[in-house]
Amino acid sequence: MSDIPALARGCAVLGTGGGGDVRTGSLAAIRAIREHGEVPLVELDDLPEDALIVPLSGIGAPTVSHEMIHSADEPGRIAEEVERLFGRPPSAIMSSEIGGSNGVAPVAWAAQLGLPLLDADGMGRAFPEVQMVSMYVAGLPADLVIMSDIVGNVVTIRPVDGLWSERLARAVCVAAGSTALMADYVLTTARARGAVIEGTVTRAIEIGRATEGTADPLGALQESLDAVRLITGKLTDVERRTTGGFVRGTATIEGTGDDRGRRLTLELQNENLVALEDGRVRAMVPDLITVVDTETAGAIQTEALRYGQRVTVLAWPCDPLWRTPKGLDTAGPRAFGYDLDYLPVEELTTHG
Amino acid sequence: MSDIPALARGCAVLGTGGGGDVRTGSLAAIRAIREHGEVPLVELDDLPEDALIVPLSGIGAPTVSHEMIHSADEPGRIAEEVERLFGRPPSAIMSSEIGGSNGVAPVAWAAQLGLPLLDADGMGRAFPEVQMVSMYVAGLPADLVIMSDIVGNVVTIRPVDGLWSERLARAVCVAAGSTALMADYVLTTARARGAVIEGTVTRAIEIGRATEGTADPLGALQESLDAVRLITGKLTDVERRTTGGFVRGTATIEGTGDDRGRRLTLELQNENLVALEDGRVRAMVPDLITVVDTETAGAIQTEALRYGQRVTVLAWPCDPLWRTPKGLDTAGPRAFGYDLDYLPVEELTTHG
Repeated sequence: MSDIPALARGCAVLGTGGGGDVRTGSLAAIRAIREHGEVPLVELDDLPEDALIVPLSGIGAPTVSHEMIHSADEPGRIAEEVERLFGRPPSAIMSSEIGGSNGVAPVAWAAQLGLPLLDADGMGRAFPEVQMVSMYVAGLPADLVIMSDIVGNVVTIRPVDGLWSERLARAVCVAAGSTALMADYVLTTARARGAVIEGTVTRAIEIGRATEGTADPLGALQESLDAVRLITGKLTDVERRTTGGFVRGTATIEGTGDDRGRRLTLELQNENLVALEDGRVRAMVPDLITVVDTETAGAIQTEALRYGQRVTVLAWPCDPLWRTPKGLDTAGPRAFGYDLDYLPVEELTTHG
Repeated sequence: MSDIPALARGCAVLGTGGGGDVRTGSLAAIRAIREHGEVPLVELDDLPEDALIVPLSGIGAPTVSHEMIHSADEPGRIAEEVERLFGRPPSAIMSSEIGGSNGVAPVAWAAQLGLPLLDADGMGRAFPEVQMVSMYVAGLPADLVIMSDIVGNVVTIRPVDGLWSERLARAVCVAAGSTALMADYVLTTARARGAVIEGTVTRAIEIGRATEGTADPLGALQESLDAVRLITGKLTDVERRTTGGFVRGTATIEGTGDDRGRRLTLELQNENLVALEDGRVRAMVPDLITVVDTETAGAIQTEALRYGQRVTVLAWPCDPLWRTPKGLDTAGPRAFGYDLDYLPVEELTTHG
């Protein structure tokens, strides 16, 4: 787990515009490794069946967490609470959300705690709400959330369901200054099987490395992701607002070159959720939609979108778990208020 | 603990306008006693030193909790969480706040749990904020809040201090529909000594009984409380709004009879906080200010104040704990945003 720059690039791509600025997580990871030493990457089979795995993520509006420096004690306070509740300390840290800063920062949290990082996450991408995790879709009851904020408060939520975990965690997050560290579920190895998306840390590093040392980063990234190119053009309109701990808005890209005359609009809610062209959906959540710099193929987060940027929009299939009925109920277009029947990106469009 | 009507009348008087409508707590207490049997009233000396005492209160805007019916499971879920955290079940329930519904409802919660009620509370009156309890003033760290809401969520807060316990508990309360059951601190008998206000359940019953079978209820109540009469008159103006889980506003009473030509204004924040006459303070928090019906001497809660009511305003000294520097920091006039130096009610006015 030493190639933090590649991990960060991959996590930014998987962030589909959200999950927080990867630079924040990268700096924390590099600093923590320097201070506490390397973080081993482990698989489920490396852990005893009753080992405790703590899925961690930062919760909050990206525009806020980007500004705030997390205190060094947050992971420790969550680990203490886990030990208090379960009678034994955690054995590994997992990223709840591989997309964005939340994919990289767990390296820092694991280093601080002297624990290995599980090569897995709970989304295979980024999602804006607490209950939108594979553990919930896999049927594990959303029965425990532990939060720690920058001033040192620890809040443990035993919600009746995933929607209440989101509602209560969001309220605590906003009261705590719109950013907090959160453990959503505490898993044993046995419970984690089939309930986490395995291999996503390795996958993020591969994606990050794909664009290294090549004359055609965009082509290399597209091939690594097996993505369709929705448009190449110029950002002509960006509208964003931060409300209730979320960034919402739209971004419009006017085609250039071969795409001249075309126009793509992205609907945003922390992440890029729906891509529309001439009133027709070209890709939609839970499939992944990422805006990248056309020249460098570096992913551009929602809060970094600016007028005039030369960008390409890529889209590719989500983990199959999200295409199950419960996956779509949890994080399909209707879960975000779009009156759309989900169609897979590969049916909506062809490779471009 | 069978004279619930007297307890309810006394708690209404001690509620200084707040603490929730005592009818809600009374009905719950009477029903719970009928179903589960009598609730023994115990003193600290009746309990082993390591017995766990759970101070409970409803949190929320009175205008909301008045409307909502608490689920029967809330006390049970808090007791479960106490046992999970401490490794042993609670031995007694305590009212966090003797004033208002929160002074009576603990009888119901104790009955449901089959536990005795401690003859003590954390305020000796009602206060609007979570950290305004004797345990905090006595120097116990505000390190644990357990909340249970009507749908069954349980939230445990380990705040860094009392102000954060208020901020986080309020946020959870609002997210949970503006009403929840809350344990603020969990005490052992040993920790409770000097940190709770003893004898207040018995005192509330005495106050409630003072107005029974007398031709002069107002005089009897005033004598029982050793209170000063600030004004007798008619409610001519009431302005209230519910924001962020609080009722705030003012009430104006125009004097009648001997008090003709005088006018008293009360500043409200769930409770009656400051009484002003001609720009002069006549009584202020943490001393107690209660509006009673002039004829029956029944206390009138903030949310029941109506134009035209014939009322008398009584004021009397708070528990000495609230007059210490930390007591005044916590619940003196400045804690509520009034730029006033505290003066005891007995120095501001003479018996009228």
